[in-house]
Amino acid sequence: MGSVGLAAIPSILAASMPASGKRQKGILSSLKTGDVILFQGDSITDAGRDRVKEEANSPGSFGMGYAYLAAANLLNTIAAEQPVIYNRGISGNKVFQLAERWQKDCLDLKPKVLSILVGVNDFWHTLDYNYDGTVQKYEQDYRQLLLDTKKALPEIQLVVCEPFAVLGCKAVTEKWYPAFDGYRVSAKKLAEEFDATFIPFQAIFDEAQKYAPGKYWTGDGVHPSMAGCSLMAEAWLKAVR
Amino acid sequence: MGSVGLAAIPSILAASMPASGKRQKGILSSLKTGDVILFQGDSITDAGRDRVKEEANSPGSFGMGYAYLAAANLLNTIAAEQPVIYNRGISGNKVFQLAERWQKDCLDLKPKVLSILVGVNDFWHTLDYNYDGTVQKYEQDYRQLLLDTKKALPEIQLVVCEPFAVLGCKAVTEKWYPAFDGYRVSAKKLAEEFDATFIPFQAIFDEAQKYAPGKYWTGDGVHPSMAGCSLMAEAWLKAVR
Repeated sequence: MGSVGLAAIPSILAASMPASGKRQKGILSSLKTGDVILFQGDSITDAGRDRVKEEANSPGSFGMGYAYLAAANLLNTIAAEQPVIYNRGISGNKVFQLAERWQKDCLDLKPKVLSILVGVNDFWHTLDYNYDGTVQKYEQDYRQLLLDTKKALPEIQLVVCEPFAVLGCKAVTEKWYPAFDGYRVSAKKLAEEFDATFIPFQAIFDEAQKYAPGKYWTGDGVHPSMAGCSLMAEAWLKAVR
Repeated sequence: MGSVGLAAIPSILAASMPASGKRQKGILSSLKTGDVILFQGDSITDAGRDRVKEEANSPGSFGMGYAYLAAANLLNTIAAEQPVIYNRGISGNKVFQLAERWQKDCLDLKPKVLSILVGVNDFWHTLDYNYDGTVQKYEQDYRQLLLDTKKALPEIQLVVCEPFAVLGCKAVTEKWYPAFDGYRVSAKKLAEEFDATFIPFQAIFDEAQKYAPGKYWTGDGVHPSMAGCSLMAEAWLKAVR
């Protein structure tokens, strides 16, 4: 397995998230007291959260993924701003399924910071679940979702997380490529169009494999391990600060 | 709410966990490759974990509490030792209920490090659930559990976590005192008897209230908020390092 200390995480992130020189401060610096931060996405964000209570700032409602680790950290580091943090990821979701529940699960919550991680199912389900979506539909639906969001909440700060996969880990085979790469490209393109903070999770997981095998970071190639969740949370926090 | 940064957590822990001068290095320094670390306890440890899979090192099996936050950190900071980390907390458990499942849920797992947080239900259930246990029974049962554990696993390193409660938060009323304090005293006494690492969670939560109100750290006085889980995990990590 080799040595993968927290010491390694800063190295992984330094290599995979080079400073752009564009942004002096991350989007968190614009938060005001009581602002809402919302995590949206699929199973990687959902991570087994309690979908009945759905309380803000509550471990019972946050699942066991990167969103919980990132939010628990924020509730200490920016506690003075009394952030209200929600997780509304739902397992299996593709972009069009986010759109179907967007009024209730995003716009009504009036987030100041919205972080979205979606795309792996938009591709994966075409292989394993007879889903007939395409990368064009993914990009169009995603663009419309972001347009609608900006229209309803002009002050919103967006975080677009790159969908990622780790080849050779159970679910992820050669069949995924090069098609899956197109979804990553679309997500990055949209991040630029909407001036969103982009989190290059694919580059991060690629770099991490220089320190430990893929299965150390994600058991099935899609869902992160605890070490993978920890890496994702650190990347997310680094990007928004 | 005031300012409660991660900046505050080191101050809270410095005040509530003074260095004893006794121990140069924490128990983690004795870990060998593949050693097992086990978290045991009640709902605070359970924290909604999936009790079907019960896998090591898996977010799905870890719940959303301090155990997950501490373990996710360990899987990065001591990854070179390839630790095998389990959570086997069960909601509502009192000491005698740990004892009933101890063979399967502790001894069979052969932990090198065993962390136990138990006691709040041993008291609380005497008020609200017609439980007829006493502080004497708590201490006797707990001592027997630790004796049995040391006998089966002589090399084990123990962490005894202090049961805690925050007065004025929903479940915790004046009725709890002074009786509840006895359970804390017993836990500390047992930690000394068994040369265990003791984590003074009551002092930690008392100190934390100088920075933010009790409800910021625990909604009902018993179960920690996300900020409270983060504080507990940092305390646990500080104590074992």
